[in-house]
Amino acid sequence: MKINKFPNKNIWSELIKRPVLKSEELTEIVAEIFKKVKESGDQALIDFNKKFDNAEVKNIRVSDEEIENAEESISEELKIAIQQAKENITKFHTSQIPVIEKIETTKGVICWRESRAIEKVGIYIPGGTAPLFSTVLMLAIPSQIAGCKEVILCTPPDKNGNINPAILYTAKLCGITEIFKTGGAQAIAAMTFGTESIPNVYKIFGPGNQYVVAAKDYCQKFGIAVDMPAGPSEVLVIADEQAIPEFCAADLLSQAEHGNDSQVIFISSNEKIFKQTIEETEKQIKELPRNEFAKESLKNSHFILLNTIDEALEFSNLYAPEHLILALKDFEKYIIKIQNAGSVFLGNYSCESAGDYASGTNHTLPTNGFAKNYSGVSLDSFVKKITFQNLSKKGLQNLGKTIEIMAEAEGLLAHRNAVSIRLN
Amino acid sequence: MKINKFPNKNIWSELIKRPVLKSEELTEIVAEIFKKVKESGDQALIDFNKKFDNAEVKNIRVSDEEIENAEESISEELKIAIQQAKENITKFHTSQIPVIEKIETTKGVICWRESRAIEKVGIYIPGGTAPLFSTVLMLAIPSQIAGCKEVILCTPPDKNGNINPAILYTAKLCGITEIFKTGGAQAIAAMTFGTESIPNVYKIFGPGNQYVVAAKDYCQKFGIAVDMPAGPSEVLVIADEQAIPEFCAADLLSQAEHGNDSQVIFISSNEKIFKQTIEETEKQIKELPRNEFAKESLKNSHFILLNTIDEALEFSNLYAPEHLILALKDFEKYIIKIQNAGSVFLGNYSCESAGDYASGTNHTLPTNGFAKNYSGVSLDSFVKKITFQNLSKKGLQNLGKTIEIMAEAEGLLAHRNAVSIRLN
Repeated sequence: MKINKFPNKNIWSELIKRPVLKSEELTEIVAEIFKKVKESGDQALIDFNKKFDNAEVKNIRVSDEEIENAEESISEELKIAIQQAKENITKFHTSQIPVIEKIETTKGVICWRESRAIEKVGIYIPGGTAPLFSTVLMLAIPSQIAGCKEVILCTPPDKNGNINPAILYTAKLCGITEIFKTGGAQAIAAMTFGTESIPNVYKIFGPGNQYVVAAKDYCQKFGIAVDMPAGPSEVLVIADEQAIPEFCAADLLSQAEHGNDSQVIFISSNEKIFKQTIEETEKQIKELPRNEFAKESLKNSHFILLNTIDEALEFSNLYAPEHLILALKDFEKYIIKIQNAGSVFLGNYSCESAGDYASGTNHTLPTNGFAKNYSGVSLDSFVKKITFQNLSKKGLQNLGKTIEIMAEAEGLLAHRNAVSIRLN
Repeated sequence: MKINKFPNKNIWSELIKRPVLKSEELTEIVAEIFKKVKESGDQALIDFNKKFDNAEVKNIRVSDEEIENAEESISEELKIAIQQAKENITKFHTSQIPVIEKIETTKGVICWRESRAIEKVGIYIPGGTAPLFSTVLMLAIPSQIAGCKEVILCTPPDKNGNINPAILYTAKLCGITEIFKTGGAQAIAAMTFGTESIPNVYKIFGPGNQYVVAAKDYCQKFGIAVDMPAGPSEVLVIADEQAIPEFCAADLLSQAEHGNDSQVIFISSNEKIFKQTIEETEKQIKELPRNEFAKESLKNSHFILLNTIDEALEFSNLYAPEHLILALKDFEKYIIKIQNAGSVFLGNYSCESAGDYASGTNHTLPTNGFAKNYSGVSLDSFVKKITFQNLSKKGLQNLGKTIEIMAEAEGLLAHRNAVSIRLN
């Protein structure tokens, strides 16, 4: 860990730097994978399963039987937990359904917006070290609330050709039964073009490794939308004198365990809390089973002592963290000062893992500084908003002259004529 | 114009095809321009002004004096029209400010979202055949309602080094006074990297030629967000027996005059209206000053006769038009069937040019079929939504076990520990 006491503001721009992503180098590899999937469809996916995941898979599509069996193989305890999380996530995302408000901008001119679900969406769930069934909840639930007609899920098989049962159980619980055994860039290609088994989609969601990231970049060339640009996960914790070092250390490590490149920043205005949190972090890390990841990611992480909480927030807004924890007594008065962050956790009992799993907020959030210009996933991500307008004859009479004058000044006389012909 | 009577559904996929954009070929040219702007800043912009716009410009930044003078050189009539449009656009976009709603998902667990303006945004306004001051309104007004701290505008100078006064007047009226004389890919590069005169921004809005489109694609590699992917403008008109052929023809032509590649589709279920609208279009086009554009774009445009309005809407949803006009008696009952469209105009008096200029809706809309997966510009485009959560000690006690079980099942024990350490 890198310890910075009262760093001068002119080096802050160094402290906020993220690891550089090398997605451009991967574009060629990804383009080749897209080409093969476009040409050979399912067969390409079967070949890639063998090549990259060492898995023999006959049917790309997960059978109903496999989904049924999954339900039996996971514990009651886990099912109940997943169901409680689902309830909370559903409650919070349902509250995001907008009310339609018709606005009369000029007498006789009524304008409004209505949401429509994106009809076809794809969810990507990575394989790898942890089966991310929580991400299934985060993406499937809002897709169902939005009313997306076709929601499919792609995830790589293990070497026996199976999908983790918690992923299958969660998907089914959320109404998703079109599940396909394919991972990496080839899964993104399949959802872009469609194959014999896999329908093409209009928007792709979900995290993944560097190939998936590059593929989600590449698929946009073919008109596919994606949830947001990607980067390694991050947390920034701001602590004052009443923060509890044990809690802060646990939060920092819960981020650090994600992977070697996770970003962890701790800021305090209190030297005692600062010192104790460093000590606690070093103590707790020894007990973690994934501590090889955590140790690696802590090497690049900053522990920063600053003069005031205001200064800490200034730094945080510059860094634009994915997760921001305010372990502050008066957190309420600092909310208004938060400009750039993905999701904010307030007070000593709002640990990041609450939002990662079960409080109800979405855990698909902007990383890599993208909290400056992107929102996290929400119900909005699964809909488009269409504007409507209805002008009565009277309405057009009231507004017509304005339109005619403006159209003429822009040199667009057919635009003007569309009004004139109606008014004459 | 291409006339299609009762086309079989298996050729619909042909009828919805857009002209293919060749943005990839331009990437190399654009990359070179970005490199020069990054290296040489303002000097590169001055050189490009000379090279591409044949303009000698000493100061990239428009002076206060130039802005003042602009006000004097445009007519009172136009000023009043712009002001009325501004009022309506302000009214409609202000209605999009969301109400903050705090949700208690589990007892003691409170979650909500708050909007924050994107701090630095850039608006691009093309030069060329028409001075698009209406686009200044559409992009500047929501940026001001959102509260963006820094809003800049780039637009190419004419060959005398000047900017059209209507653009300067409108920008100032909307509170924008940081205006720069630079166009094309170099303007996008300047807003991406910043130069001596031009600040860098986090998100770039606005239409442009193929170089601008390619540059807005390219700038995303550097972490810059953009409003939406681009394509030529489009309208699809659906008319029943009570539609007025003169009005329909005028609407079709107001789209066709935009440029050679504009897309125009007319659908009717009534043979008489179908025939009359074709005749009216041929008649009206002769009187248009920009009819060389309109004639060219009509060549690629489809006039389609279908059996029913339901079938017309099915076609429209497949095409996903930027603008959709329902010249229908019972338009209200068809609203729910509209799945994919940018902006919808209802009834005989809701001409597209109302929305282009002054009704209050935004005219920056998804083209090229992107209405399937993107919304048009709205207040949302200028903000990010941050999620907040506050768990009381009791709240974490209520939810803790669920989080612990899920974290353990994902193999993320530091995530579990962040809860356990608080509960013990």
